[in-house]
Amino acid sequence: MALRPDSTSEAQVWVVQGGESRPRTDQLATEEPLEIRLRAGRAVERKGPVPVFRRQGAGQRTVAITMRTPGDDFELAAGFLYGEGIVRSPDEIQAIAHSQDPKLDEDRRYNTVDVDLRSDVLPDLQSLERHFLTTSACGVCGKASLESLRLRGAPVIPPGPVVDADVLHALPERLGAGQGIFAATGGLHAAALFDLEGNLLALREDVGRHNAVDKLVGWALLGRGLPLGRHIVMVSGRTSFEILQKCSMAGVPIVCAVSAPSSLAVSVAREFGITLIGFLRGDRFNVYTGMDRVRIPIPADGSR
Amino acid sequence: MALRPDSTSEAQVWVVQGGESRPRTDQLATEEPLEIRLRAGRAVERKGPVPVFRRQGAGQRTVAITMRTPGDDFELAAGFLYGEGIVRSPDEIQAIAHSQDPKLDEDRRYNTVDVDLRSDVLPDLQSLERHFLTTSACGVCGKASLESLRLRGAPVIPPGPVVDADVLHALPERLGAGQGIFAATGGLHAAALFDLEGNLLALREDVGRHNAVDKLVGWALLGRGLPLGRHIVMVSGRTSFEILQKCSMAGVPIVCAVSAPSSLAVSVAREFGITLIGFLRGDRFNVYTGMDRVRIPIPADGSR
Repeated sequence: MALRPDSTSEAQVWVVQGGESRPRTDQLATEEPLEIRLRAGRAVERKGPVPVFRRQGAGQRTVAITMRTPGDDFELAAGFLYGEGIVRSPDEIQAIAHSQDPKLDEDRRYNTVDVDLRSDVLPDLQSLERHFLTTSACGVCGKASLESLRLRGAPVIPPGPVVDADVLHALPERLGAGQGIFAATGGLHAAALFDLEGNLLALREDVGRHNAVDKLVGWALLGRGLPLGRHIVMVSGRTSFEILQKCSMAGVPIVCAVSAPSSLAVSVAREFGITLIGFLRGDRFNVYTGMDRVRIPIPADGSR
Repeated sequence: MALRPDSTSEAQVWVVQGGESRPRTDQLATEEPLEIRLRAGRAVERKGPVPVFRRQGAGQRTVAITMRTPGDDFELAAGFLYGEGIVRSPDEIQAIAHSQDPKLDEDRRYNTVDVDLRSDVLPDLQSLERHFLTTSACGVCGKASLESLRLRGAPVIPPGPVVDADVLHALPERLGAGQGIFAATGGLHAAALFDLEGNLLALREDVGRHNAVDKLVGWALLGRGLPLGRHIVMVSGRTSFEILQKCSMAGVPIVCAVSAPSSLAVSVAREFGITLIGFLRGDRFNVYTGMDRVRIPIPADGSR
């Protein structure tokens, strides 16, 4: 049987505070892809003990793959379909279940939800087609696997450079000082590029967190500044798969955030050699991966 | 000439604080769709004073439509293409410009960026096709127009019900008390459903803001509780087009957030009759639309 993924994941983290660092076990919000498949009433042909699934076609369609936190997956699928106007009443739904598709790896079945409709034909998904076509810049939902990132050419970042903890502590204030629109509206995500001395090189803001990072990377690309191998990217909120994906492609060795990373953000960081820092505020921060790039003063008692 | 949209938009807002309300002009982060089009070197045939554009086909492709805050659009397009592995060097780009496509309405040209490649053929977008297909649950990027929401069957919510300001003031604490995972990880968005007396009916959390709302709506759908005509939805962060879209489809009359709305969130709320509240924290909140659903004690001096 596949293991149902938890809503939280454990992570080993270095807590850096007041010039000292100590290891701790932390809870992260799990981030995993969920595929929502819609099936017409006859898509499942139960001819024997094992259900036989039609190939994807007229009777079966993947309508969405989203990064989500496992839990309430059936509600997520139902709510998504309702929001898209595809399902308008619970009576239209015959069953919602995690997939039992024998073609799927066991551990992928909990990341796939099959919604069986009573109708023998799938509803018109024309509008959804359009929709698919128009959401790619949402980022990387669905490109769940680190593999896809590797295929796209994301480099594994070599060891170094090293940054002083004091430099990191100073970043949030500098980010805040640079946030023009944010201050006025309170409604924007910010992404900032710093050098290893903590000098602000560029700052971009957007309603979309990923857009702010795209703008930074585009600025560097057009200015012939890629890869960003001796730089720090700091974002105003949380870090997710897509933020790490974009930083990874740009070769950024150190990524910081005011808030927490997701489980998959940590996975990308570990896999591609990125130092990932969260809860960077006040006199503390957490290092989730790549502690070797952080230089911390050795405490007086030599305990480290 | 088309008018370049600003990064911020003005909004008239009621500030409710300490039992009094007063009107104010506020700045919102602008949220508008941006279409990124990729064109092979020969897609533009300059045979006369006006460039002639090929029809979308082998030489021209829409690769993304995303909701974004106007500003740095060329960087956004370049950074997006780099992150997707489509463009790997600035040398591959011949030009980036806001569209001059005569087939577009003037005011849409600033929402369309054409990226002209030096290559005479478009790069293999196979991986991107897959990508398109897999991001729909990111929500509504690209279904920018309120029209699409109307076509999908979003109802205009009739006047009423009315909620007491005191009930609203109490919501953030109740949201926080209900946030189990959030408290542990700091990495999740929350969406909660309240009745008009402020009783918490359901709370869902997710790394994706839109997923949390989908889970709430799915819960209501499967429990035959839709539409949510006498309910309040509160989200832990900001409100964007997609949050309002999902609440609108579910018939929610009052939507509250701890932080600010985007310009398009306010537009959806106004168009579909939703009361939209932001900065709900401490003893204050801002009402962006639908003030008639908020009951505020009349101050002693009768000034209202």
